[in-house]
Amino acid sequence: MSACDIDHMRHALALGRRGLGRVWPNPAVGCVLVKGARVIGRGWTQDGGRPHAEAMALAQAGAQARGATAYVTLEPCSHTGKTGPCSEALIAAGISRVVCALGDPDPRVNGKGFAKLRAAGVEVGVGLCEKEATSDQIGFLSRILRGRPMVTLKFASTLDGKIATASGESQWITGPLARRRVHADRAAHDGVMVGGGTARHDDPSLTVREIGHDRQPVRVVLSRMLDLPLSGALARTARDVPLWLIHGPQASPELRRVWGDLGAQLIEVPLSRGAVSASAALTALGERGLTRVYCEGGGGLAASLLAGDLVDEVHAYAAGAMIGAEGVSVVGALGLQHLARAPRFALQRIDRLGSDVLSIWRSTTPL
Amino acid sequence: MSACDIDHMRHALALGRRGLGRVWPNPAVGCVLVKGARVIGRGWTQDGGRPHAEAMALAQAGAQARGATAYVTLEPCSHTGKTGPCSEALIAAGISRVVCALGDPDPRVNGKGFAKLRAAGVEVGVGLCEKEATSDQIGFLSRILRGRPMVTLKFASTLDGKIATASGESQWITGPLARRRVHADRAAHDGVMVGGGTARHDDPSLTVREIGHDRQPVRVVLSRMLDLPLSGALARTARDVPLWLIHGPQASPELRRVWGDLGAQLIEVPLSRGAVSASAALTALGERGLTRVYCEGGGGLAASLLAGDLVDEVHAYAAGAMIGAEGVSVVGALGLQHLARAPRFALQRIDRLGSDVLSIWRSTTPL
Repeated sequence: MSACDIDHMRHALALGRRGLGRVWPNPAVGCVLVKGARVIGRGWTQDGGRPHAEAMALAQAGAQARGATAYVTLEPCSHTGKTGPCSEALIAAGISRVVCALGDPDPRVNGKGFAKLRAAGVEVGVGLCEKEATSDQIGFLSRILRGRPMVTLKFASTLDGKIATASGESQWITGPLARRRVHADRAAHDGVMVGGGTARHDDPSLTVREIGHDRQPVRVVLSRMLDLPLSGALARTARDVPLWLIHGPQASPELRRVWGDLGAQLIEVPLSRGAVSASAALTALGERGLTRVYCEGGGGLAASLLAGDLVDEVHAYAAGAMIGAEGVSVVGALGLQHLARAPRFALQRIDRLGSDVLSIWRSTTPL
Repeated sequence: MSACDIDHMRHALALGRRGLGRVWPNPAVGCVLVKGARVIGRGWTQDGGRPHAEAMALAQAGAQARGATAYVTLEPCSHTGKTGPCSEALIAAGISRVVCALGDPDPRVNGKGFAKLRAAGVEVGVGLCEKEATSDQIGFLSRILRGRPMVTLKFASTLDGKIATASGESQWITGPLARRRVHADRAAHDGVMVGGGTARHDDPSLTVREIGHDRQPVRVVLSRMLDLPLSGALARTARDVPLWLIHGPQASPELRRVWGDLGAQLIEVPLSRGAVSASAALTALGERGLTRVYCEGGGGLAASLLAGDLVDEVHAYAAGAMIGAEGVSVVGALGLQHLARAPRFALQRIDRLGSDVLSIWRSTTPL
């Protein structure tokens, strides 16, 4: 692989990331076609997961594609879905070399894409920028390998780790730049998730706003008994933006009917320690195709996710204020006996957002 | 003022900062002497506060000083202390122009230094890099204007704002780079302060180590009853490194005698809400000459300082772990009724230290 190969793959990775939050249940893939030193086609997975990146790039390149190199961020598919497989399309277009960042562990692909290309005489290289590609595909990989979406846990707290005063005051802890960043991050996830307490207390709409975005993630609320406000923002908008309510077996038939009539999709999962099982909830979301979930609290749901080792990324916003020990902590009770057992995260990056700090951390548990 | 003037003043500011933590009760001043485009003398306040920066720079320049420009970070003194005033020394050396960042509000100076220079025909400019100089001099200015040292509140917590598990486990939350930075920051303060609970629980030595430093800050412990371990690190080292114990009126004569015999200096202050008054303690430290105090907790002392609006800078270390709501919060109870009354701090800088984040914040209360 040459330095040019790396540049083209980075280009493809950047294109692929455009699809994050928009293409579930499919992976967000990027593709760049290069002939000589010229880029002759660029593509990325389109909204809803189709067309695939390779098909977009090939359509752009047209007849020029013959003899070109394709840089693709994930193994081209080999199975026939709604359209023909990408590996066959690449072969048919006369692509002579395919450089891939990552194999696709989906059992319908899993090496068959590469095998098909090689059988047709196409030169295939795999593993260029694999680390970046794995990071971008963590949601898709998680759904395939662990049966659940990746989870980003986001919280905004004071410098002393509080999200509200003892009396429950919590608005405007962080500033406008942090809020806008939250909207952009919601947009890059397939679903936005909160616990029932947060839905009752904050009456959030959980939509993407302020950034001119045209596609809304699924709103997910975990509520054991479905005792959510029937006149709140979620109820009002359930017909316009998908709202999935994950509840326990004891939720009343009456409330299930009311929320169904309002437009919500109802998902029953078992309880765990008296609350909706976070693990079962994520499995249910994975079964329905979600690959990336952005959890915005509250502290109880955050604690359930952390205790179950279900958090892949933490977005910690800190604002320059102090509330003191009586305030509400950012994470609920974890039942931790020893510091050595504390959930651990590795620092990825730090961003300054006006007067706030956003630090991003990744789970140290391997995928 | 020209771009060259700014460069020379920045040079002087950098020299002046070398004295932070080493020169109390005096300010840490820097001085650069320039003739033509050549730097002919550089000086900074020496350990213990004497000689002053100007005297060091003039000694280095010798006879070349005649006709030179002096860049000084604080108004040259005009009163005769242990040595003659710097303003007179500058005049005697034949300096033709003095550029200063900041006037000295000490009533013994307060414009008299500038007046003396001008009366002798020296051209005087004031206010270059005033903001940086004020930031560097915040400890000295605080002692002169508010009668107390500036206070840096440092804490190291998990991402969810905890410093220990419910059972009190607290060691090694942050990593080796963060610990080394703490030693460097201790060294840049005149005193290192903790509450009695921290002294009992952690048995800290509160000395500067690991960075090859040769001058120790004063260790300050607030303890209402002086009930500190008589066989701990502080007791063992009280003869070697200054240890000041600030206690309440009820501390027993016996314990006062024992600690005095061990080498500690005892300071009695009144109580406030049942604890040693943080405000009275800082006033006592200011009276004894301290200009910069680095407070390392615990949560109770941090809360007292915050509640009294006595914190000038916050150093918040965050490590990639979670402890959960049962853990010990980084700041104790503040008795806050409304979020609008929360102590507020403005972000100054963010440093990545290995796997930890240090964010530095300044009080929004003006000096």
